[in-house]
Amino acid sequence: MPDMPDQKPGQAPPQDPRLPLTGLRVVELGHYIAAPFATRLLADLGAEVIKVEPPGGDPHRDWGARVNGHAVWFSIHGRNKLSVTLDLKTEEGRGRLRALLARADALVENLRPGAIERMGLSPEALHAGNPRLVIARVSGYGQDGPYRDKPAFGAIGEAMGGLRHLTANPGQTGLPPPRCGVSISDDLAGMYAALSLVSACWGRDRNPDGKGTVIDLDLVSSVFSLMEGMLPEFAMLGRVRQPMGAALPSAAPTNTYPCADGKWLAVAGNSDLIFRRLMARIGREDLADDPRMASNSGRCANAAELDEAIAAWTRTLPAREAQDALEAVEVPCSRLYDMQDCVEDPHFQARDMVLPVEDPLIGTVPHPAAPFRFQGVPPAAMVRWPGPAVGAHNDYVFGSLLKQEDTP
Amino acid sequence: MPDMPDQKPGQAPPQDPRLPLTGLRVVELGHYIAAPFATRLLADLGAEVIKVEPPGGDPHRDWGARVNGHAVWFSIHGRNKLSVTLDLKTEEGRGRLRALLARADALVENLRPGAIERMGLSPEALHAGNPRLVIARVSGYGQDGPYRDKPAFGAIGEAMGGLRHLTANPGQTGLPPPRCGVSISDDLAGMYAALSLVSACWGRDRNPDGKGTVIDLDLVSSVFSLMEGMLPEFAMLGRVRQPMGAALPSAAPTNTYPCADGKWLAVAGNSDLIFRRLMARIGREDLADDPRMASNSGRCANAAELDEAIAAWTRTLPAREAQDALEAVEVPCSRLYDMQDCVEDPHFQARDMVLPVEDPLIGTVPHPAAPFRFQGVPPAAMVRWPGPAVGAHNDYVFGSLLKQEDTP
Repeated sequence: MPDMPDQKPGQAPPQDPRLPLTGLRVVELGHYIAAPFATRLLADLGAEVIKVEPPGGDPHRDWGARVNGHAVWFSIHGRNKLSVTLDLKTEEGRGRLRALLARADALVENLRPGAIERMGLSPEALHAGNPRLVIARVSGYGQDGPYRDKPAFGAIGEAMGGLRHLTANPGQTGLPPPRCGVSISDDLAGMYAALSLVSACWGRDRNPDGKGTVIDLDLVSSVFSLMEGMLPEFAMLGRVRQPMGAALPSAAPTNTYPCADGKWLAVAGNSDLIFRRLMARIGREDLADDPRMASNSGRCANAAELDEAIAAWTRTLPAREAQDALEAVEVPCSRLYDMQDCVEDPHFQARDMVLPVEDPLIGTVPHPAAPFRFQGVPPAAMVRWPGPAVGAHNDYVFGSLLKQEDTP
Repeated sequence: MPDMPDQKPGQAPPQDPRLPLTGLRVVELGHYIAAPFATRLLADLGAEVIKVEPPGGDPHRDWGARVNGHAVWFSIHGRNKLSVTLDLKTEEGRGRLRALLARADALVENLRPGAIERMGLSPEALHAGNPRLVIARVSGYGQDGPYRDKPAFGAIGEAMGGLRHLTANPGQTGLPPPRCGVSISDDLAGMYAALSLVSACWGRDRNPDGKGTVIDLDLVSSVFSLMEGMLPEFAMLGRVRQPMGAALPSAAPTNTYPCADGKWLAVAGNSDLIFRRLMARIGREDLADDPRMASNSGRCANAAELDEAIAAWTRTLPAREAQDALEAVEVPCSRLYDMQDCVEDPHFQARDMVLPVEDPLIGTVPHPAAPFRFQGVPPAAMVRWPGPAVGAHNDYVFGSLLKQEDTP
């Protein structure tokens, strides 16, 4: 790890020429998840990200478990970023933000629609100061439309985009469909914001006179974009996709089965050859030879009987042993990993997916590596420093960066 | 809609200079979901995507509901792409692919690790022919590591990356944790492939001597990257995040409640002021005034009692009426939309999220619009044509494009 840039007031932070976005300057005017996740991805890819926070800091800094009074999630969520504080209620604060944006490639913001306009920082005003600025805006429902001004509570994208309806066991179980378990709609919108922002920069920079643009992303559409063929299935055929629990309607046996230790094992035993190996391993050669089960369509018609036979076997073993036994006969399967399973698995270790990062606020914090690997770039190079203290880079950004470049 | 490019053999397909990736040429050597989803996003953004298929076509073309014998999903999944067929078992086929890649900016592939090497198309060989080529490789477990050669069945990333463990009701319900309901791990890996590919092109194209690279993405890491602060929570504090169903452990009342029509309503009633409005609306002023419920911590301690009070009210109304009643008093809520709810909602209409597309194979197919909106670009401009017939662009690509540019 290089030295923390917040330990050297006024000096430029380390940049790594091996990373693809080194040289791209992005200002984040974000809070909570969506915009900060977009800029975290850009920063992992090498961009210089300047996170503009109110003097009290992004409220996300208080989320989740803490060590030494600092939330461990922010060590990850804020990594590779420069933190500066500005009071945007004052003209001085807004003036400094305008000066930063005049020297930036892009802005990512997820304030409520209309908020930057009310501060005198409309896209038109920002483009007057910097015609090349790419402005990516993330909101719950978009910058127009009937719900623009509704508050976007966390689960809205998941519910309205169609995902939550599907993430459920079928029939009347009496239990509510579970949440996805992570901030999936914010994450998706953040990923789309990062992709469309870099795309706009690529298009702009092909041309010395290239202009910036404004990108409008909403959580609901980001989720809706993953609905596969379900829109024409409904509109052309009248079929409304229903939740399928852990099964698939068109392949059997494939389901998730209970094990002796209370854990679950997902098994994909639905090809003809794999099915025979699976039945032999669980001691049900009779089902392997049963003519009703010779084809996938027959197995689908008798899926409940097959699922019960498999579950009767999985219930006798802890999930890890059941997985080992099925993998030994080449039946694709996986138990449902919790975080301990991930950390202990040789895959995550061999792929350097857990990186120890020295965090001056917290100590050694294990970070998940960036998901993208570039030839010749070790994963550790993509985590240059952890989420910094609030305003840690005020001296560098306002004292050096803005002055170095007097004519933006 | 412009004319379908497959109706004009040998002519270049229409390009739209308003789209950010117009001028970027990407070859897809993909099948099923992950790589084709990456290239669908790039194509929506304006890239020229050449999908290389075996003579029988990508098996994804057979997935899901059909009209006129053609799967409606592929109309979406293959949109804006050029389809060419090549038999890569022959030297002629491989030679044509090499010639295409010599003229391309990027390749996206999701064959099994080692497959392109066995065809003599290793990254080294491809870079010998085109040093600027950006090669994005997507696989279940990555291009190295202990599981590289294991078959990647669909649900693997969701299970091993930690998501499936979380998407569940807590405790021993007897029901398996449901699938996410869409191909989430493929989608995430595809989105990361698109983002890292465009980033690599931006970095390369800043410099006339810029070189290509190889990007390695796996489904498991793509899911794992969304696990928020859970890795340090476990490694530093010994806490293993457990599924929470539809509730949140740190805020109450916020849950998902059953309605009279069998549908569900997600309600976020957990701020002090919203809680009072919610209780008043459901006729439980006694709970609004109950000193045990005055703070969020007190409400969390008594969440079961609050949830039962809210459910007793929601069970008396269809979900849409319950939603309208709560929104009238500004309580954030949303029923869990199915595809019919989406299509009928004014938001999706006002935001042009459902686009009618003329598909010569199927008729008028409603497509979900691209999730990103660019200033001055109507959403319909991002769907230039629907998924084409297998090999529809062989004449243009092999007859014109390869010949137009004899010196790549």
